[in-house]
Amino acid sequence: MKFTKKDIQELPHVHKINLVNSLSGYKAANLIATRSNENITNVGVFSSVIHLGSEPPLFGFILRPTTVKRDTYNNIRSTGYFTINAINSEIIEDAHHTSAKYDSTISEFDQTDLQTEYLNNFYAPFVAQSNLKIALKYSNEYAIEENGTILIVGELIECYVNENMLSTDGFIDLSKGNTVAINSLDGYSKVDSPTRFEYQKPLKIVKPQN
Amino acid sequence: MKFTKKDIQELPHVHKINLVNSLSGYKAANLIATRSNENITNVGVFSSVIHLGSEPPLFGFILRPTTVKRDTYNNIRSTGYFTINAINSEIIEDAHHTSAKYDSTISEFDQTDLQTEYLNNFYAPFVAQSNLKIALKYSNEYAIEENGTILIVGELIECYVNENMLSTDGFIDLSKGNTVAINSLDGYSKVDSPTRFEYQKPLKIVKPQN
Repeated sequence: MKFTKKDIQELPHVHKINLVNSLSGYKAANLIATRSNENITNVGVFSSVIHLGSEPPLFGFILRPTTVKRDTYNNIRSTGYFTINAINSEIIEDAHHTSAKYDSTISEFDQTDLQTEYLNNFYAPFVAQSNLKIALKYSNEYAIEENGTILIVGELIECYVNENMLSTDGFIDLSKGNTVAINSLDGYSKVDSPTRFEYQKPLKIVKPQN
Repeated sequence: MKFTKKDIQELPHVHKINLVNSLSGYKAANLIATRSNENITNVGVFSSVIHLGSEPPLFGFILRPTTVKRDTYNNIRSTGYFTINAINSEIIEDAHHTSAKYDSTISEFDQTDLQTEYLNNFYAPFVAQSNLKIALKYSNEYAIEENGTILIVGELIECYVNENMLSTDGFIDLSKGNTVAINSLDGYSKVDSPTRFEYQKPLKIVKPQN
């Protein structure tokens, strides 16, 4: 089935955002946690966390400034720190509930069974139930002119990985931690064990044009 | 297990990139296809495609300028067009092979069983075997100062979705198309049917602090 840009623009709002959010494929499922200068914790579900580079280890995420997740932004800018916590299948319901628009004075940690965990004196809380957690320092941000979103960039300070997920070559098998993937805006999926491939080199024989 | 930034910096290169690429969670698995002004097609696997917004429908991906995928960048800049094609489990081996460093004069479409498909006179080819395909026009790019990567932004012109994947509310069930997710650099995983949740509103009763 074909949809032109105009077809999409004319869809009802919910139909449109469900569709367009599906098109890019699976998204990472993470909880970003922060703590304000007033000591109020915040945790929100984000499906836009991306790997930006490994030397140094850099990650980014997209923030839509008009959403409740402004608390996340304000806390990151005022304190400089945040954590990214992988969502596993045991906590998807509470993780998704953090998308509700709570007032800044209320912590989503108090409205759900998600628990704060403080490790190694890092300022921002981790999510205790997560088995893959990154502590990050705010590095930079880029305003996306086309639609007013912001790409936030953070650098890894340290990370915590459950040992059962870790392979001898550094690969973390996310399926061993029941890490989920997000489909569109509100779909959470369990994922099978990965098939891994070798580093690819060009074929020595060039195939004829097909 | 804990890794500090320094621990990671001291890991052997492959170990380091396997680990850091795993930390952000599952990644979208897509093939980006282009055609040069000289009529040479190109297709490459990308795990960094993200949804940037729905009104208008905008997508982005991260390009590491030092890799072979420079062909993708050059073709997008010189012609203005590209396609994003979801990878399904039937084509993972060929999709991964496109990461091999072929010379610009050789098309990955000729070195694999991936086939070009031209739809509605769009300049860039689609991947015929993909069941979820987006035609995009280059919109902008943002240089990530921290590590020299580039965020390329494109706007949807049209998209093609297999009807069996489409729900009545616009949600595309990626699992019905056997769309895979990427784990780290070289792991491809099949994904289960999603559990969908309602739009979340704050709880009326504020829970006591835990």
